[in-house]
Amino acid sequence: MLTTIAVDAMGGDNAPAIEVEGAIQAARDLRVRILLIGREEQIRAELARQGVPDPRKQRLHIEIVNATEVITMDDPVAQAVRRKRDSSIRVAARLVREGKAHGLVSAGNTGAVMATSVLMLGTLPSVDRPALAGIFPTLKGNGTVLLDVGANAECKPEHLQQFAIMGSVYSRSILGVRNPRVGLMSIGEEDIKGNDLTKETLHLMKEAPVNFIGNVEGRDIFTGDVDVIVSDGFTGNVILKTSEGLVEAIMGLLKTELGQTLLTQTGAILSRQAFRSVKKRLDYSEFGGAPLLGCKAITVICHGSSTPKAIRNAIRVAKEFVKEDLSARIESEISEMTLIQ
Amino acid sequence: MLTTIAVDAMGGDNAPAIEVEGAIQAARDLRVRILLIGREEQIRAELARQGVPDPRKQRLHIEIVNATEVITMDDPVAQAVRRKRDSSIRVAARLVREGKAHGLVSAGNTGAVMATSVLMLGTLPSVDRPALAGIFPTLKGNGTVLLDVGANAECKPEHLQQFAIMGSVYSRSILGVRNPRVGLMSIGEEDIKGNDLTKETLHLMKEAPVNFIGNVEGRDIFTGDVDVIVSDGFTGNVILKTSEGLVEAIMGLLKTELGQTLLTQTGAILSRQAFRSVKKRLDYSEFGGAPLLGCKAITVICHGSSTPKAIRNAIRVAKEFVKEDLSARIESEISEMTLIQ
Repeated sequence: MLTTIAVDAMGGDNAPAIEVEGAIQAARDLRVRILLIGREEQIRAELARQGVPDPRKQRLHIEIVNATEVITMDDPVAQAVRRKRDSSIRVAARLVREGKAHGLVSAGNTGAVMATSVLMLGTLPSVDRPALAGIFPTLKGNGTVLLDVGANAECKPEHLQQFAIMGSVYSRSILGVRNPRVGLMSIGEEDIKGNDLTKETLHLMKEAPVNFIGNVEGRDIFTGDVDVIVSDGFTGNVILKTSEGLVEAIMGLLKTELGQTLLTQTGAILSRQAFRSVKKRLDYSEFGGAPLLGCKAITVICHGSSTPKAIRNAIRVAKEFVKEDLSARIESEISEMTLIQ
Repeated sequence: MLTTIAVDAMGGDNAPAIEVEGAIQAARDLRVRILLIGREEQIRAELARQGVPDPRKQRLHIEIVNATEVITMDDPVAQAVRRKRDSSIRVAARLVREGKAHGLVSAGNTGAVMATSVLMLGTLPSVDRPALAGIFPTLKGNGTVLLDVGANAECKPEHLQQFAIMGSVYSRSILGVRNPRVGLMSIGEEDIKGNDLTKETLHLMKEAPVNFIGNVEGRDIFTGDVDVIVSDGFTGNVILKTSEGLVEAIMGLLKTELGQTLLTQTGAILSRQAFRSVKKRLDYSEFGGAPLLGCKAITVICHGSSTPKAIRNAIRVAKEFVKEDLSARIESEISEMTLIQ
């Protein structure tokens, strides 16, 4: 049986065009079945516009499920989740809960997608708080998993301990790291450095069944010397957005400076391949979005400004997550730890 | 009378060579008198090695003040500050307290430098907590001031309110921004976004006599659309180190990729000027270190790995701070606010 991924077709800034294009790419490249959730007519028109009026005829496993409402980026989260019962994200989550899909991808309002996932899919029995896992590019290796990047603005030490396990399972199963090194985000490597939360967390990290290497700092994110970094969701979200902003600023600065003279312009043309490689390495869309770990099924949350490639890769991540049965692994490792303690 | 800056000559990773070179540059370029504090013989030998055996003969206002002890990067802060009473940083701070110097520059153990400054110079009467101010490069404008970048791992809302005023005074007086826009570092622009601390701080920010523009996010640091950003010292320090690490990673990545083929190598040579400009814009040494704001006199804290240029620029910042009488301005603005409330 093909893995089925429910894609919220109405979530992103340019929905449903981007979602439809990403879904078509995924259906072509990956062995996966896709349910596109949203306003049926709009999605059907978009499919036709993109040359796929009837997916079955092209042997693409794409189906449409109608949902009449849309949660926008400006909607107040709590209210929208409660009241818009026929929103695309809620219908998508319902399909997963009912077993009609195995995982979920959305580029919609992050708060609403998280809240809906927790509400509709449910948290794993042993998990106190689901966490959003971001992947950061590294100089060597496959990227660093940082969690939480925004699901929980306030965290307790026990939450961070569980994040360490969830991140390890993710790094091992999806990124192929054999014995992921886990660090605690702090402001100095020494045990005494940090804030109240990190200091209280430290001994729990040492007790956790993970390969804990101690406190790490912001500069360690990109070296590849640590595979999983845990932090509260406020700090993690600030790190994520700071990094995105800085990459954008540096690329903008480079572009401006390279355009200054004929000489630099020529140089830029000759070295184009190098810039492309760097850009590709830094491109978040290669990673396809941030999975929400700790629910009974996977939700991959994409940027509102995602490209079709990002949607496609998010579908890939969701599929791998299902294939590796990550939720079950997370549940088993955390419940095991809790039993021991 | 020349402004006198006490320079801890034994602080950095390559002390005293770097400090001596930076001091010579500053004494040549800026109208400033410098006291080099540390092991007299070592400093004298280094001056001679750098072609300045007798500063007076070259009309350089450089003098040596002997201090026999050194606080290393590995020294436990509290103990070192208390026990090493003849350390270079402590003697330097004593000279400032006694009015023999106006400001202080050190590339030593950050924790020890901060603790010594607070202990020896004293906090301004109206200031609850001194804060370390970092400057971040921006696409347009003169750079964003972020504070606190590491003096206070735990902060209360009132502290952040005072940081806003200190940062505004700094941005206005040193960076020449007329009406600095102040933002509160959070995880969304809306008032309801954030953690407990930012939510509690928000109304205090609105009441403060600063040009408060609301919550900002990590990506706003580099745009130049906000001049001062306040955050607790844990978050600020993580931002600082994340940014440094990412710049290093991107530059490393670019260098590797540009070296791959003859074509890209040639391109890199032609566009060298553009890379130099970008590097200069991102170079922390241009900013000269982070001033500790809120003490009765200024301390500028430099990276342990500072270049001579960074030391020189730190001396420049300390001198401007003294010239603009920044401590008095900070005291007057904060005490005024406290009176109103």
